[in-house]
Amino acid sequence: MKKTTIGIVGYGNLGKGVEVGLKHSVDLELVGIFTRRQPDQLETSSPVYHIDKLVDFKDTIDVLILCGGSQKDIPTQAPKMAELFNTVDTYDNHNEIPTHFEKLDKVARNNNTTAVLSTGWDPGLFSLNRLFAEAILPKGNTYTFWGPGLSQGHSDAVRRVEGVKHAVQYTVPKQEQVDAVKNKKSLDYNKQDAHKRVVFLVLDENADEKKVRESISTMPDYFYGYETEITIIDQATFDRDHTGMPHGGTVMRQGKTTDENTAVYQFGLDLDSNPEFTAAVTIAYARAAGKLAKEKQYGAKTVFDIAPSYLSPKDPKELRKELL
Amino acid sequence: MKKTTIGIVGYGNLGKGVEVGLKHSVDLELVGIFTRRQPDQLETSSPVYHIDKLVDFKDTIDVLILCGGSQKDIPTQAPKMAELFNTVDTYDNHNEIPTHFEKLDKVARNNNTTAVLSTGWDPGLFSLNRLFAEAILPKGNTYTFWGPGLSQGHSDAVRRVEGVKHAVQYTVPKQEQVDAVKNKKSLDYNKQDAHKRVVFLVLDENADEKKVRESISTMPDYFYGYETEITIIDQATFDRDHTGMPHGGTVMRQGKTTDENTAVYQFGLDLDSNPEFTAAVTIAYARAAGKLAKEKQYGAKTVFDIAPSYLSPKDPKELRKELL
Ligand SMILES: NC(=O)c1ccc[n+]([C@@H]2O[C@H](COP(=O)([O-])OP(=O)(O)OC[C@H]3O[C@@H](n4cnc5c(N)ncnc54)[C@H](OP(=O)(O)O)[C@@H]3O)[C@@H](O)[C@H]2O)c1
Ligand SMILES: NC(=O)c1ccc[n+]([C@@H]2O[C@H](COP(=O)([O-])OP(=O)(O)OC[C@H]3O[C@@H](n4cnc5c(N)ncnc54)[C@H](OP(=O)(O)O)[C@@H]3O)[C@@H](O)[C@H]2O)c1
Repeated sequence: MKKTTIGIVGYGNLGKGVEVGLKHSVDLELVGIFTRRQPDQLETSSPVYHIDKLVDFKDTIDVLILCGGSQKDIPTQAPKMAELFNTVDTYDNHNEIPTHFEKLDKVARNNNTTAVLSTGWDPGLFSLNRLFAEAILPKGNTYTFWGPGLSQGHSDAVRRVEGVKHAVQYTVPKQEQVDAVKNKKSLDYNKQDAHKRVVFLVLDENADEKKVRESISTMPDYFYGYETEITIIDQATFDRDHTGMPHGGTVMRQGKTTDENTAVYQFGLDLDSNPEFTAAVTIAYARAAGKLAKEKQYGAKTVFDIAPSYLSPKDPKELRKELL
Repeated sequence: MKKTTIGIVGYGNLGKGVEVGLKHSVDLELVGIFTRRQPDQLETSSPVYHIDKLVDFKDTIDVLILCGGSQKDIPTQAPKMAELFNTVDTYDNHNEIPTHFEKLDKVARNNNTTAVLSTGWDPGLFSLNRLFAEAILPKGNTYTFWGPGLSQGHSDAVRRVEGVKHAVQYTVPKQEQVDAVKNKKSLDYNKQDAHKRVVFLVLDENADEKKVRESISTMPDYFYGYETEITIIDQATFDRDHTGMPHGGTVMRQGKTTDENTAVYQFGLDLDSNPEFTAAVTIAYARAAGKLAKEKQYGAKTVFDIAPSYLSPKDPKELRKELL
């Protein structure tokens, strides 16, 4: 069987995750990593090319996995690359997904390519489970809890506070709320009250601890109004316990099948590495993109539009026999 | 919008679940229930017809939901009905699914109908999650735990023991094993040791309790070799606590995203009523069958072959905006 050939665009956390993840898929083959930086700056044993060379690979790469940032990179990179390549991205700016879809769909249809957008876990697997749960249990409520997990944006915000040397912020769902949904209790859910913000930080020498704590707790948008826990730790503890990128969360739906009977639908992830797992999802959707393009199913596709069997390297017959 | 019209074939637990479940779906409409018994024997306010009248509904029913038993009814009913109708079933005889698929696929292709098989939760949602988890985390192990839930077959077996008046048997996963997988510990799993069998029974007057207990614990295939707990209760307790049909379970996969990092993928159901929830899944797939047939996507389809958006009454644009 001819392998599906893959290019990685952008070599950050996600790009590195895709690079290692591809090693677990015998039907996929990495052709190269494409970066805006000088190729020889990247520490890797995979082939690296400058992004300007991408066009030379038009006929050798089946699917590009776009690993740029959702804020600045994907909105410009994705529509441009979908002109020449089948693509997959993990675009996670929820409000802008419909616009991103429309742009990609137009480009992909005009150029006979397939562009799979917003894969990963949220958007991605969480979205899928929101859909399944709601379609199956129309009478009910869906709840999403994020974490325990590292929030990059909030960690950055803490690091900018005067007197902070190193910091991480974990978003942690309130267990009693998760348990309430699990145990079929009613819950008056709002995202803010359902999570707490847990900060671990190393102080600068001579920093004013009281002032640091206050600056964080009162920071608008990021911490103000949230239950926030701040723990001061030393450098050694920080280095030992807080350099990973764990994340995860739960999507749950409580639904009534009749007035008397409740069903709880639950989907959860517990990830040592957010970018590696996001990469793993993206890789499965890259396989799907390759198959869809072969079938001339062109245009933009979301996780909602792709039959599950496309994600697997196994053929439909094997799947029915082994997994149904 | 024209509603999709539905017929229910067979009026047991599942058929009744579909009847009530359809009330939650504004885009679906029940035309009638079809039974092998005398129609006036069935207690319901829905229209009931003898199954011999089905053919008269060829042009008024879009999709038939087949609610017969997997053992004896579905293997004969499904291929016959797929000649005239689009169908959905919950066929759960895992070993025979490939054969059932081949038979249905032939009939459905020859007659331009769509036949969706083996929906429900296992097979069905559990199968879907086994597929997603394995495709995303190729390096790992999948574990299925069933229950806590009522096992019809085992309850029947206990009831046949001399001295037993009423009985129920719940299959209960061993919590320490579930927790081990959740907590990223390794687990040497086998189905038998992962579950215990919990029996509640009411004795006949003058029954020999010791003999009853022994007959159950040593019953080959059903209980022998399993950790079995037997509790004797009185009739009032039985009537109060043990007349429902709860079920559920968990599909989990522990996967390595790199040698260092683990991801735990988890899908769980906790159902007050197994047949009502199975019905709810089947109803969503009946919607999908209606859409597929309209698009002339004929033949047999499993849950692996159907894009998630087909299950929802919302259109793809709404789905992207609200759920992605
Ligand atoms: N859907 C989901 O569930 C999900 C989950 C997690 C993340 N995501 C998305 O994934 C996106 C990418 O995340 P990420 O963690 O990989 O972001 P990142 O590490 O900041 O990388 C983003 C881009 O920045 C450039 N870059 C990386 N390291 C650099 C360095 N040392 N110096 C200069 N440039 C560097 C790379 O492009 P060049 O190689 O071209 O320089 C890279 O593609 C996020 O924006 C997020 O939206 C989605
Ligand atoms: N995939 C899954 O996750 C899943 C989960 C649960 C169940 N299932 C499947 O669903 C199937 C149906 O389950 P069920 O609980 O609905 O079975 P059931 O109650 O035994 O009904 C099966 C059939 O028996 C007939 N029947 C029912 N009550 C009767 C009565 N009082 N007297 C005479 N006949 C009667 C009905 O046909 P008529 O109306 O024509 O007489 C009915 O369609 C099971 O075999 C199982 O395989 C699948």
